[in-house]
Amino acid sequence: MVKTVEPWKQIAGGIAAPQGFYAEGVKAGIKYPDKYDVALIYSKVQAQAAGVYTKNLVKAHPLYLNQRHLQNGMAQGIVVNSGNANACVGAFGEQSAEAMAEAVAETAAIPQDDVLVASTGVIGVELPLERVLTGIKNAGTELFKTMEKASDEKRDASLAEGAHRAALAIMTTDTVVKEYAYELPCSQGGIIKLGAMAKGSGMIHPNMGTMLGFLTTDAEVPAAVLQHLLREAVEESFNMVTVDGDTSTNDMVLILANGVSGIAPNGDDMVNFEAMVKAMCIQLAKDIARDGEGASKLMEVQVTRAKTKEDARKIARSICGSSLVKAALFGEDANWGRILTAAGYSGADFNPNSVDIFLGNLAVAQAGKGISFSEETAKEILQHKEVEIRLVLNDGSENATAWGCDLTHEYVTINGSYRT
Amino acid sequence: MVKTVEPWKQIAGGIAAPQGFYAEGVKAGIKYPDKYDVALIYSKVQAQAAGVYTKNLVKAHPLYLNQRHLQNGMAQGIVVNSGNANACVGAFGEQSAEAMAEAVAETAAIPQDDVLVASTGVIGVELPLERVLTGIKNAGTELFKTMEKASDEKRDASLAEGAHRAALAIMTTDTVVKEYAYELPCSQGGIIKLGAMAKGSGMIHPNMGTMLGFLTTDAEVPAAVLQHLLREAVEESFNMVTVDGDTSTNDMVLILANGVSGIAPNGDDMVNFEAMVKAMCIQLAKDIARDGEGASKLMEVQVTRAKTKEDARKIARSICGSSLVKAALFGEDANWGRILTAAGYSGADFNPNSVDIFLGNLAVAQAGKGISFSEETAKEILQHKEVEIRLVLNDGSENATAWGCDLTHEYVTINGSYRT
Repeated sequence: MVKTVEPWKQIAGGIAAPQGFYAEGVKAGIKYPDKYDVALIYSKVQAQAAGVYTKNLVKAHPLYLNQRHLQNGMAQGIVVNSGNANACVGAFGEQSAEAMAEAVAETAAIPQDDVLVASTGVIGVELPLERVLTGIKNAGTELFKTMEKASDEKRDASLAEGAHRAALAIMTTDTVVKEYAYELPCSQGGIIKLGAMAKGSGMIHPNMGTMLGFLTTDAEVPAAVLQHLLREAVEESFNMVTVDGDTSTNDMVLILANGVSGIAPNGDDMVNFEAMVKAMCIQLAKDIARDGEGASKLMEVQVTRAKTKEDARKIARSICGSSLVKAALFGEDANWGRILTAAGYSGADFNPNSVDIFLGNLAVAQAGKGISFSEETAKEILQHKEVEIRLVLNDGSENATAWGCDLTHEYVTINGSYRT
Repeated sequence: MVKTVEPWKQIAGGIAAPQGFYAEGVKAGIKYPDKYDVALIYSKVQAQAAGVYTKNLVKAHPLYLNQRHLQNGMAQGIVVNSGNANACVGAFGEQSAEAMAEAVAETAAIPQDDVLVASTGVIGVELPLERVLTGIKNAGTELFKTMEKASDEKRDASLAEGAHRAALAIMTTDTVVKEYAYELPCSQGGIIKLGAMAKGSGMIHPNMGTMLGFLTTDAEVPAAVLQHLLREAVEESFNMVTVDGDTSTNDMVLILANGVSGIAPNGDDMVNFEAMVKAMCIQLAKDIARDGEGASKLMEVQVTRAKTKEDARKIARSICGSSLVKAALFGEDANWGRILTAAGYSGADFNPNSVDIFLGNLAVAQAGKGISFSEETAKEILQHKEVEIRLVLNDGSENATAWGCDLTHEYVTINGSYRT
């Protein structure tokens, strides 16, 4: 993996950085009286849109709504609530998701099927719908106020503030806000912007466990292309994050491209745009892994020289998901046997007798067996906030990277009393 | 599942209860100076034998030896050490397993290929072979002393004491000894005995994660039949235990049938014998789940009315393995949404909208959605040391049961510093 200098750079403004996008977050009192819990994202024009959803057989009600509303590949608004998953509550759940979309449509005067809905929180409890709907109306009022005084000609700091409140509103047990924006100068002239925010902490796993990601761009990209590049980006980012092996009923990543920049990237610009979307997803995914419930360390597992990409992915995720590896990481114990064992039960095909294992740059096992190494050096490496585990399979030429975190006492405390 | 009175009863004597079997455990100083760590099981005559092994791609060295030695379906001795897994150490590992078998063969004057070997402990570190071999000799000396003064005509308490030391010697982080014996009166006259011991705590999962089980019987049963019934019993017991989702490199269950009772069970007796072996495996499996590292509660998940047996098994194991369900159990939080979510990502095929969920006898969800229930009653049920979770899928007629435990602070502490 050759490191090259990226053609994009980070800018301020989060989800509302791209032209024509606005966002707001308000306190609707869904679970807590004083927490931002309803977020609204709005594009001033109809946008091309795509989504990727949880593979859990049990799906929250908003997901079905989004699948319907995205059939035409168009959307203009996204509403998100935290504090309640709107999952497993039967007909009332469907009605709630519809009512949320309807409230946005009314507030913003856009078609209801151009609204997408997302929820995160406790499962199986009915949403306090009235409060949510009032929250949506309030968010709309604030958003349109901002829009009036900060139109595209004079976009100012109030946009970033609204975006920040939106990013706060989608958090549950997250300890840090996850929002970024990039801008990409195009060879054809002009600039494309990409904004994003995400929510995730705990219950995170391949196939997207209570993980919400939202991306906005002012590039002009058809929905079908968006769908393809979003899926590819999610596969190498969100789906390679494992915090506790549980996948959620609510997860989704949505992207909206409103074309307001007037630039339809092609050639190298399109290659760069795709890479920028993937980089954004990886940035958010790593933030989520690092922010795993009670986590004190980020673990990055790089598997190289595998027979197939799928083998590499299985092994990387299996190691990130192993409770024993995670506990050893917490204990700063160079227990590479657990790493190899987790590879062994991953379901991947590889030759255990040709695996080399490294902690950072320290070789701890060669050709599947232990070698003598400095325990002090190992300890030092494991004390870092970010720990790299590398497995060289010497079996082929495919690579994969996954991210996870350590397993701490804090995780148990947080998850022992989430619902009540 | 109709409860019937079992035709067998529990007796004393553990692994050495069946006629013609002897066992001993000694302190060889493998990892700790004052812990029993080498166990020897011996039959006075060659026995029919069968084994089931871990499905982890990475296998410890003794497993390959056993697969070779069991090709003829015969064995007479088993040696087990704790404190070191004899895994992932290359040629020295193979030599160590061979040397252990050789030491037993010499001590007991039996063919080397009638000896089976098992190890449990840290992976990737060479066995302190000399100490192990001295331990085997000492165990042999003690065992033959016992055998001399407690022959089959005058079997006495010293047999049970040797068996108990053997059961102590296979423990690692186990907090309780796991040994049992049953006797089955046969309709054809006479009595068949079954003895057993097991080791397991943490790193336990379907496909047998550092889980060792040993069974002995004085029934006359051909190796091929033993192999078949052992595999069936393991599928419904050890392979339905999940403590942390990790499967180990070392796991195995072995059974020896020496025929000394003179009884070859058939008809109803054979049906009862098979049921007794399965009941023994379930007894040990539950003990292992209950003894999960740091566990404070046993969780039994019963899935009924599934489309296929495999669907029922997947769902039951997925729930037992969910960190979020386990943490909620620890926190005594009736978070049934997590239970349904874990079913949803199990890979099983079922209709989420027809699932009923019970905690003990308390219905908490019906047709896939939450119903109102007494939080006090739920709390009371979750406070028990054994908690039953039942899912009725209303989708078919197949059932499965799995066992697990809660996730506690103690688990993290134990596994943060196992190796060092």
